[in-house]
Amino acid sequence: MIVPRLIERKRSGESLDPSELRELVLAYATGKVPDYQMAAFLMAVYFRGLDRVEMNALMDAMLESGKRLDLSHLAIPRIDKHSTGGVGDKVSLILAPLIASLGVAVPMMSGRGLGHTGGTLDKLESIPGFKTGLTLAQAQKQVAEIGCAMLSQTDEIVPADRKMYALRDATATVEVIPLIAASIMSKKIAESLSGLVLDIKRGSGSFLPELDDEIRLAEAMIDLGVQHACPVVALVTAMDRPLGFACGNALEVTEAIDVLKGGGPQDLIEITFALGAEMLVLSTLASTREAARAMMDGAIGSGRALRKFEEIIAAQGGDKSVLKDNSRLSQAHSRADFVASANGVVQSVDPRSVGYGVIALGGGRRNMEEKIDPSVGFVISAKPGDLVTRGEILATIHARNKEGLDVGRLALEQAIVISNATPKPLPLVSHRITAGGVETL
Amino acid sequence: MIVPRLIERKRSGESLDPSELRELVLAYATGKVPDYQMAAFLMAVYFRGLDRVEMNALMDAMLESGKRLDLSHLAIPRIDKHSTGGVGDKVSLILAPLIASLGVAVPMMSGRGLGHTGGTLDKLESIPGFKTGLTLAQAQKQVAEIGCAMLSQTDEIVPADRKMYALRDATATVEVIPLIAASIMSKKIAESLSGLVLDIKRGSGSFLPELDDEIRLAEAMIDLGVQHACPVVALVTAMDRPLGFACGNALEVTEAIDVLKGGGPQDLIEITFALGAEMLVLSTLASTREAARAMMDGAIGSGRALRKFEEIIAAQGGDKSVLKDNSRLSQAHSRADFVASANGVVQSVDPRSVGYGVIALGGGRRNMEEKIDPSVGFVISAKPGDLVTRGEILATIHARNKEGLDVGRLALEQAIVISNATPKPLPLVSHRITAGGVETL
Repeated sequence: MIVPRLIERKRSGESLDPSELRELVLAYATGKVPDYQMAAFLMAVYFRGLDRVEMNALMDAMLESGKRLDLSHLAIPRIDKHSTGGVGDKVSLILAPLIASLGVAVPMMSGRGLGHTGGTLDKLESIPGFKTGLTLAQAQKQVAEIGCAMLSQTDEIVPADRKMYALRDATATVEVIPLIAASIMSKKIAESLSGLVLDIKRGSGSFLPELDDEIRLAEAMIDLGVQHACPVVALVTAMDRPLGFACGNALEVTEAIDVLKGGGPQDLIEITFALGAEMLVLSTLASTREAARAMMDGAIGSGRALRKFEEIIAAQGGDKSVLKDNSRLSQAHSRADFVASANGVVQSVDPRSVGYGVIALGGGRRNMEEKIDPSVGFVISAKPGDLVTRGEILATIHARNKEGLDVGRLALEQAIVISNATPKPLPLVSHRITAGGVETL
Repeated sequence: MIVPRLIERKRSGESLDPSELRELVLAYATGKVPDYQMAAFLMAVYFRGLDRVEMNALMDAMLESGKRLDLSHLAIPRIDKHSTGGVGDKVSLILAPLIASLGVAVPMMSGRGLGHTGGTLDKLESIPGFKTGLTLAQAQKQVAEIGCAMLSQTDEIVPADRKMYALRDATATVEVIPLIAASIMSKKIAESLSGLVLDIKRGSGSFLPELDDEIRLAEAMIDLGVQHACPVVALVTAMDRPLGFACGNALEVTEAIDVLKGGGPQDLIEITFALGAEMLVLSTLASTREAARAMMDGAIGSGRALRKFEEIIAAQGGDKSVLKDNSRLSQAHSRADFVASANGVVQSVDPRSVGYGVIALGGGRRNMEEKIDPSVGFVISAKPGDLVTRGEILATIHARNKEGLDVGRLALEQAIVISNATPKPLPLVSHRITAGGVETL
């Protein structure tokens, strides 16, 4: 393999053979191909793309670079959910215990906050003692015993992806659909899934602002799943405003627990149930989405889902008393209400302003070294379309101190727009994408 | 400076500010920006280009990364010639002493063989004892004393270019006109020139096969020269066959000495004089190209040019007796004639086949670690358009041994095509390009 020649061919728009891509990725994973050659290759891919055969070969090589979560001995179906990332998105915290409580294995490997979005791992770690850094062996054992483990990507799983992702982040080659698809799907295929549900976020708070790109990304991931006997269903959901009310790690855990107890904001419940229904149908435990919804209602109503979360928290070293008393989660020192500055209709609640606001409060990272404060954030009850009057409470700011309250107020002033126009929020769930095609809902 | 953001902006087709490019290049030169970020940036430049302001800023930063050959104290004009690279191109060996003998300072910084082409340094080093690795101080002193130094690029001169060039070679980002132009011109501007003549090679043996690209390259270099008070004149010359007869290091030195003595192949003399005339007019020592030709005729006829070469060789530790006795140059052990296999007209003598043939004989490098054998090569007297008869001698092969002769024969069989068609060789000098525009000759 002459690497500059491979780069040159991709640069010129040629397709590379699967064996060439395999050799390149494995040599990169083991340090035989230096970062600078991979960086040039990835930038050439940014401009020239990868066809589906190349994308699949890239993913296979990433899988081959590491180990898999071996769950093949389990008799029950193994289903995961993945979101492309949003603000206020605590759906995983609800779905993992909810679906596991219904007899599906949910091996959930999650990430940390990225850009303006939060990460499931950071949210879980706001539960005192909760450990997400499981080994593969620990995760396998826990999934076998209680049907669910919520863990970070380990060094053992797709190390080539880990290395390439860090390089892409440093070289402005993140936004490349086949690379995003192969990166996500390599981790999901490594979980030995029998099915995967994707939550493709759409709107101003999503990473890919164009709906066409979202759909292409979903189709690429579905294609990779099909080639690995892992059926994939994708729902396109609204991320033109935060999901639910709470934005901030401990606040989101509290809201997720509310949903598991039968409460919580309507939009969060709707998206969670839509995704959960797809998981249960994929698992074949439910024959229709309607039947799946009834099963989920039962699991919440009976307390099974909440008890499953309790089991997960206990298994991963966390303080399960948070489920009964959310004051055991980290509490912000300063709180203040944020009120409407005028009469009118809420036009928008911009998720990026809210997400960066959480980071400014100390609830997210500007770089991977920063520690985060789990207590801070917002609870924003206002939604686009709400009729509000001047002085009405729209949100609560949770901050470390008074200066933090000012920071939070500024973020919400930027995020929440009130006027007399008619707002046009996106439908909560707008498209359903499968190997069969795109269905508009 | 947030480097991924800079890369992203270039990737998206934006122009970067001069100050941003300066910071990027200087941080790269000092190791603060890693190779992988520069590699991604360069690949983005491959696709998006650099405008003239950016190209100039890039070159200025490369210049700022090192020292210059300070010749500003010299009262005489300082003119250099640069060729984009070809096969059999020994013009520098003739022009440097010839033009220096007429009272022009010629600070000639040259390169080694690249791809199928030979390099002036390798040719000079076939003279026993000749040292090309001068320090800046040595080169300055020598130019001041004898009007000419022939040296390799030192570590002190444009180190950012050195580092970037090596990276480009490893990442398939060599063929980018603004990067080529800035790389060449940074070294030339660092020579404190008062004028520069470019020999832009055209045809199958050149690096850029398209005439349009050649002209764009010339225009880019002229533009950079204009912005640094260094007028540039470019001639587009034929590289659809080797220049002169000799191809191979010591053989080319012998042929260059022949020209300095008043002999040598006609095409070599014509291109050398065309370039030399431009150098003398740029220096203002000649008022017209015709006057310049007369001056060069005089310098050769009187022996002044040859004596200048003798001074240069002596100053740089070489064995000046090679000028009187070319058997003091390294001699090949095996020689054989190569004859025409049919009656007909020579259609082409392919420079790439000849150039790679020299490398196969051991007279060039496949990688920078290889040592070269200065004695081997070809003397090809056949030129496109020559009427030849079967068995007539077209060339002589100089090899290390009998196996080498077979290698050389194979290369010439590929290179020399004989048929009864009418060949269409390129005109020796086809275009003249200045800041005023492109003139077809």
